[in-house]
Amino acid sequence: MSLLSVGTVAFDSIETPFGNAEKIIGGSCTYIALAASYFAPKVNIVAVVGDDFPQSEIDNFKEHGVGTDGLQVKKDQKSFFWKGKYHMDMNSRDTLATELNVLADFDPIIPDSYQDCKYLLLGNLTPAIQKTVIQRLKQRPKLIVMDTMNFWMETALPELKETLKLVDVLSINDEEARQLSGEYSIVKAAAKIIQMGPKFLIIKKGEHGALLFDSKQVFFAPALPLEEVFDPTGAGDTFAGGFLGYLAQTDDISFDNMKRAVIYGSAMASFCVAKFGPEGLKGISADRISQRVRDFIDLVQFEISLV
Amino acid sequence: MSLLSVGTVAFDSIETPFGNAEKIIGGSCTYIALAASYFAPKVNIVAVVGDDFPQSEIDNFKEHGVGTDGLQVKKDQKSFFWKGKYHMDMNSRDTLATELNVLADFDPIIPDSYQDCKYLLLGNLTPAIQKTVIQRLKQRPKLIVMDTMNFWMETALPELKETLKLVDVLSINDEEARQLSGEYSIVKAAAKIIQMGPKFLIIKKGEHGALLFDSKQVFFAPALPLEEVFDPTGAGDTFAGGFLGYLAQTDDISFDNMKRAVIYGSAMASFCVAKFGPEGLKGISADRISQRVRDFIDLVQFEISLV
Repeated sequence: MSLLSVGTVAFDSIETPFGNAEKIIGGSCTYIALAASYFAPKVNIVAVVGDDFPQSEIDNFKEHGVGTDGLQVKKDQKSFFWKGKYHMDMNSRDTLATELNVLADFDPIIPDSYQDCKYLLLGNLTPAIQKTVIQRLKQRPKLIVMDTMNFWMETALPELKETLKLVDVLSINDEEARQLSGEYSIVKAAAKIIQMGPKFLIIKKGEHGALLFDSKQVFFAPALPLEEVFDPTGAGDTFAGGFLGYLAQTDDISFDNMKRAVIYGSAMASFCVAKFGPEGLKGISADRISQRVRDFIDLVQFEISLV
Repeated sequence: MSLLSVGTVAFDSIETPFGNAEKIIGGSCTYIALAASYFAPKVNIVAVVGDDFPQSEIDNFKEHGVGTDGLQVKKDQKSFFWKGKYHMDMNSRDTLATELNVLADFDPIIPDSYQDCKYLLLGNLTPAIQKTVIQRLKQRPKLIVMDTMNFWMETALPELKETLKLVDVLSINDEEARQLSGEYSIVKAAAKIIQMGPKFLIIKKGEHGALLFDSKQVFFAPALPLEEVFDPTGAGDTFAGGFLGYLAQTDDISFDNMKRAVIYGSAMASFCVAKFGPEGLKGISADRISQRVRDFIDLVQFEISLV
């Protein structure tokens, strides 16, 4: 039983107040797969790149035990490229360039060897492609997590709402939750979104942490206060990958276990932001992950006895 | 042994996206004293008002067991007045009017009956007046908490730094912490500020919660996600009042107990923001406070066993 990550594998150029990185590896699927690989028994990816994509990076996926049978390499085509610039607060960014390239006519083909997929993470892509992936799986996964963004709310809202009905968990940021629901209050926004289909909603607030809602409960996990945040690119995808990877490892989708998964996702995101691109996600020892989780426990746990 | 709250008792006019309130009771000392009154064995106030201040509001302090011997009422003078407008996000506000009135030559006289003060909360006032209060106490309190704001960092930084050396806990918001330290990273900012004098630092982040630092540890408490936030005025003072009130009640200033105090302060702040002005702080039952603290426990507690 495996975890399938679908999304982009791409090149990013990133400017932050602390430095620049030109044409490094990025993409939602990259961050998700690397983060999940520390937990899930098996991680597979479905994505598309051009033949400008370095073999060494495909090898890196393999070194992390990530199956790349579903990674299509298009001859004489270029990989998806995104260029962005972060402001001082690191919570807002400007997109400076987007070149779809191979992504323009991406057809997500699922290899037969992936059909045992039990946990599906639909990284940020057009909602229509996300839906196609669900339809192409012969058996419905035990849990489907969907990430999306404001761009699709503006350009493909009907398709997004269709796909939303088919998933279990939606992962978006606070501004996107407000946009999708038309409610300013996050609590009201969550209630409305849960009526649109997903049983669970994760609202990511960047450096201010993340909230997990179901129809009755809410759980909050802060982001770890860090001395330095170099590059927030991929932090949300990394969070989602750690979250679903942990659920796949433990094979328990109760709300209590999802709380733990949120903590593991937050821990992985804290590794991600400490370096440019996905560098911080490479070669993390189990001990470092445990220590990071311990830091979270120290950060938020308290003892109060109420009569 | 008592808790002394020094600050403003005033009139506020408040505009929010959800409504307006004209000339209602406000002031840092008001919020602090009401919040602390639910916990501390005895709360006293030192403040100044004009004779336009309604006797019914002075009676309301007394009904909450708050000692008003140190509340000076200046004949033929007007009370301090502040008018502000909140934006949709409720984290930012514009000051539309400030009339100092009686505050212009406030001399904080400490009644003899207050000299048993064990816990001192210096609400937002000029740093020079805050220092005078400390000097006029014959015995140094067990714990001194100081609140301040960016205005004093811009207009009275040397005096602020002097007063800072005399206190145990500083309570400011995240932007103020950045301004005071010159560091963008909250973690670095906290380390610098703790070197300026206070052993503990509370960084308030509004709807994003609060952080408690000492030189070695950090604790984070979220704000409770609420369906409606009507008016954030006084939320920071209410938090501080609940925080110090709880410490006075338990008479334990260990870091572990300060964590609990942060939760109680956050619980009181959640009552405050649900109504205009300090209305939400009146007549709260012990049961409602316990239930609110239970909501915090449900919001953040999780179980992870690490080997």
